[in-house]
Amino acid sequence: MDLLSIKSPAFLKSLTMDELNELSADIRKFLIENLSRTGGHIGPNLGVVELTIALHRCFNSPQDKILWDVGHQSYVHKILTGRADQFETLRQYKGLCGFPKMVESEHDVWETGHSSTSLSAAMGMAIARDLKKENSHIVPVIGDGALTGGMALEALNHIGDEKKNMIVILNDNEMSIAPNVGALHSVLGRLRTAGKYNWVKDELEGLLKKIPAVGGKMAQTAERLKDSLKYLFVSGMFFEELGFTYLGPIDGHNYEELFENLQYAKKTEGPVLLHVLTKKGKGYGPAELDTKGTWHGTGPYKIDTGDLIKPVGQPPAWSSLVSETVRKLARTDERIVAITPAMPVGSKLLGFAEEFPDRMFDVGIAEQHAATVAAGLATQGMKPFLAIYSTFLQRAYDQVVHDICRPNLNVFIGIDRAGLVGADGETHQGVFDIAFLRHVPNMVLMMPKDENEGQHMVNTAVQYNDGPIAMRFPRGNGLGVAMDEELKQIPIGSWEVLREGTDAAILTFGTTIPMAMKAAALAEKQGISVQVVNARFIKPLDETMLMRLFESDMPILTIEEAVLEGGFGSAVLEFAHDRGFYGHVIDRMGIPDCFIEHGSVSSLLEEIDLTEEAVIRKLSAMTPKKQKRA
Amino acid sequence: MDLLSIKSPAFLKSLTMDELNELSADIRKFLIENLSRTGGHIGPNLGVVELTIALHRCFNSPQDKILWDVGHQSYVHKILTGRADQFETLRQYKGLCGFPKMVESEHDVWETGHSSTSLSAAMGMAIARDLKKENSHIVPVIGDGALTGGMALEALNHIGDEKKNMIVILNDNEMSIAPNVGALHSVLGRLRTAGKYNWVKDELEGLLKKIPAVGGKMAQTAERLKDSLKYLFVSGMFFEELGFTYLGPIDGHNYEELFENLQYAKKTEGPVLLHVLTKKGKGYGPAELDTKGTWHGTGPYKIDTGDLIKPVGQPPAWSSLVSETVRKLARTDERIVAITPAMPVGSKLLGFAEEFPDRMFDVGIAEQHAATVAAGLATQGMKPFLAIYSTFLQRAYDQVVHDICRPNLNVFIGIDRAGLVGADGETHQGVFDIAFLRHVPNMVLMMPKDENEGQHMVNTAVQYNDGPIAMRFPRGNGLGVAMDEELKQIPIGSWEVLREGTDAAILTFGTTIPMAMKAAALAEKQGISVQVVNARFIKPLDETMLMRLFESDMPILTIEEAVLEGGFGSAVLEFAHDRGFYGHVIDRMGIPDCFIEHGSVSSLLEEIDLTEEAVIRKLSAMTPKKQKRA
Repeated sequence: MDLLSIKSPAFLKSLTMDELNELSADIRKFLIENLSRTGGHIGPNLGVVELTIALHRCFNSPQDKILWDVGHQSYVHKILTGRADQFETLRQYKGLCGFPKMVESEHDVWETGHSSTSLSAAMGMAIARDLKKENSHIVPVIGDGALTGGMALEALNHIGDEKKNMIVILNDNEMSIAPNVGALHSVLGRLRTAGKYNWVKDELEGLLKKIPAVGGKMAQTAERLKDSLKYLFVSGMFFEELGFTYLGPIDGHNYEELFENLQYAKKTEGPVLLHVLTKKGKGYGPAELDTKGTWHGTGPYKIDTGDLIKPVGQPPAWSSLVSETVRKLARTDERIVAITPAMPVGSKLLGFAEEFPDRMFDVGIAEQHAATVAAGLATQGMKPFLAIYSTFLQRAYDQVVHDICRPNLNVFIGIDRAGLVGADGETHQGVFDIAFLRHVPNMVLMMPKDENEGQHMVNTAVQYNDGPIAMRFPRGNGLGVAMDEELKQIPIGSWEVLREGTDAAILTFGTTIPMAMKAAALAEKQGISVQVVNARFIKPLDETMLMRLFESDMPILTIEEAVLEGGFGSAVLEFAHDRGFYGHVIDRMGIPDCFIEHGSVSSLLEEIDLTEEAVIRKLSAMTPKKQKRA
Repeated sequence: MDLLSIKSPAFLKSLTMDELNELSADIRKFLIENLSRTGGHIGPNLGVVELTIALHRCFNSPQDKILWDVGHQSYVHKILTGRADQFETLRQYKGLCGFPKMVESEHDVWETGHSSTSLSAAMGMAIARDLKKENSHIVPVIGDGALTGGMALEALNHIGDEKKNMIVILNDNEMSIAPNVGALHSVLGRLRTAGKYNWVKDELEGLLKKIPAVGGKMAQTAERLKDSLKYLFVSGMFFEELGFTYLGPIDGHNYEELFENLQYAKKTEGPVLLHVLTKKGKGYGPAELDTKGTWHGTGPYKIDTGDLIKPVGQPPAWSSLVSETVRKLARTDERIVAITPAMPVGSKLLGFAEEFPDRMFDVGIAEQHAATVAAGLATQGMKPFLAIYSTFLQRAYDQVVHDICRPNLNVFIGIDRAGLVGADGETHQGVFDIAFLRHVPNMVLMMPKDENEGQHMVNTAVQYNDGPIAMRFPRGNGLGVAMDEELKQIPIGSWEVLREGTDAAILTFGTTIPMAMKAAALAEKQGISVQVVNARFIKPLDETMLMRLFESDMPILTIEEAVLEGGFGSAVLEFAHDRGFYGHVIDRMGIPDCFIEHGSVSSLLEEIDLTEEAVIRKLSAMTPKKQKRA
């Protein structure tokens, strides 16, 4: 059928089984073709084609509320709710968002870039529904990986207790983002192999009636067995223990099973957990065969071969540079242990894991736990390397404060994807970490200008034994600079002058350095001589260099790819005023006080006016005399 | 025995049962007497007397590592590790800390002011032990309340999966801080009533052998029943499912049971969960009879009657003022729903709960879930009031960013215990919230000068429908000002001049206003005329007033009882420079970049030089001409 003509999911109710099958084939074809051009989360979405169709057939969205957790599995939902025509712009600037987005559609009732939030939100919606005496189904769809996140477990505990009507769909694709870990995963594994719970329960009830009494004690036990029936099996017990009615596991690619169980769930009082087995990448060979998680989310690819279309000859990825340097150091430093919350692929830790299987821990989607495991390791003289994305470190803020920085433990935090990340948008921009780490006592925070300095910083962090130290680095690849053979240490809190100048000084670090250098060169042509400083330590500041700068008369411009409020520029202002340098012109450039949408990093920088041209404008305005002269 | 003479727990190993019983009686007497003078967490510690003695007898601390979660149950541990002589100074400035503290003793191997962290830390320690090929027992003691915290659940999942040797003691006192909530609690409840698991298991194995086969199918089922034996009971199954060997439940006041089970646990391979039932307040009538959690932590009390010694005639507590105003508004505004993460008593929400039982949700120790439940409610047009302590809001930072502020939802966050909290010390000071909230887009953050403004601010927050709004307020009582009958709304972002002046201006808010007013009055006598502004909105700033101030020539002093890095003063600096007011003298006072220990708030303010005298010194230094003239 013509997917572009779909306006609302209402048409699904009247489709025949043949038409449904045709529709799923059409949607798969559409996804495979479109994503081969735009990239996107192909694997998860191919896995939920039938499930999404079944949900929209059995429920009435948006009256009934379907919440996607995590939201990258919402493409089929977007197609069925009238957005097929926007897929050409998926994850592009001003284009279709890769996650549910309330402003895009009334069918997107919850936004989920970070995982494990849907059950809590659904609980809030259920409370509201009941207080307002409304009737609606609330249907969070949560992946098996997202379920290991602490807040999802907190929510299960609360939902099971409150007994509100809610239908939780556990989308169990056996893989999460990376192959799944954790005890909960083996519970799910046992469920998968235990056969169909409901069927077994019925059969067993019959059998139990046949158990003959062997004296009073046996009768008592038989009675007890009957009472405990629901606990008899590996199956739903875990969830039943928590107060859910467990249904499943069922085949998530079989419409009849889906319809039957969803209808049954609708009639059930109290919270239901429907365990649905799906296959990531279903219907597209290369993605189906994926065992490592590489087809979870991809860039463009060739449909026939499944080859990813990647620019060749690029410098190494930042994640790779960092993890491989840690790996190199781990060969001689036995204290090093790597920890990742479910991102071994993204953080490029597979090499480390292969070489040091005993010293690498993927703890699943569990950022809080990951941070405090690192703290526990550090209390015993180990040197934990916590590899975590900037945006996900937000979830471990309290653990960083209370468990790592307060007792001043030697944890090395590798903050990946710092700054603007691009296509993943609002929920994933790594723009808050400076503001939420800079005020934490004992923290050392740094960012390298290129991959060579990056490797030395990794070494610096590993050798540093005076407390926590974090290195932020961007998404994407290095600059392609020459790499030193030998690793050095960079003095903590030391900056570096990259370019001398006498009329103004730019203080910046990381990704914005090339822009600053170019702007300085162009300004030179306008007669403004600009010093550029690599302010590679965001905390502590290089106080000696700052004193020297303030004792000169140069206006200062700070540039950061991070929020301005409470950021690096703010630290420079604080320093100036604390030392009594009141008269100085200090201006700041960075990310304004709003959430930054998705799009290529360059479009986004353009939008927030964080460009070479803007730097030159600022420099000109800060040096009016120079301007006149020039 | 003479508790003051204890130097190390080694002496416990040779005590007879009579001596042990005598010791527990002595410790109880010591605690009841000492805490009647100093106050402290009496209930939890009376509950763990035998458990603590048993742990120190069966293990060799500090080689074996005992972690207390949450740490306020560590008083008996402190007595047994040579700190009885310091109890006179408990929770006082430079005195004994109310939580484990590594610098106090080598026996304090982990610090826990926030709950639910011990299992993750223990996991880190276990990994380190195994990598270093050492031998030691790692024994986290976690309360049933702390177990509902998401990170504890994340840790259970990981520990169960990794199968490391570890002995988790579940200290189940059936109450947590407030009477416990959640499905996990009813699992524990069923365990408690299900009898002793091990005994039942043995008996049942015998019985099952007697089941006669009724055809092939029955035999198959019997086989299956045997395989599933460990799942047969309500009991340990939940934990066994996750990969733990479950022992218990046992009587935590019975030495024989404790010794036997601890010894058994020591010999068991892999992770063990020993479920110990204890009674909070055990051995002291008033505390034993407590059902509401009032004897969890108290101030001084009269031993014979159990009456708390409270100053009489005090103004209302801040928590009470806020919660009661919300309650009043809830009578006419049906959108209001209150949410607390396990703090109904501390947040004074019992009255609200009594009047609106359907509109009050205690979600247990689960700050992340609490915040996102609020977000979910707000998506449905409700007006959630999230009552949370400043220090615990740290744990919901990501939920505030991603789930509340990003979609700009109408959640009212009541940030209790903001600023210095005193006796609870480092882990509980509410000094980071401004720095971790100010940079979050869409957030409105305010703090009232007194309880009358406080009630109007609560009303303002409830009437505000443009996104998230937070009001921070301090621990303790109001100022005793007259209260308006009618609730007003305060314009968002509006400040208020409390005192006119022409030589300098102080911008401050909340608790530091009285100090600023006194300092201004004293400065006046030295010839410095000081304006004092109630900067009640921390975000957004009152831009009109700031422009007026900057257009004058007055030096500005900002004062805040919060960290200086990225704080309110920093916001004022940012504003000045963004608007091109470069030449201004702006100085900041607040909390320096270190963790602030325990002690009375006044001692702490003295230590960090946040006093009237310091303000006057600053004012004098900022107005040198005035000084010379005076």
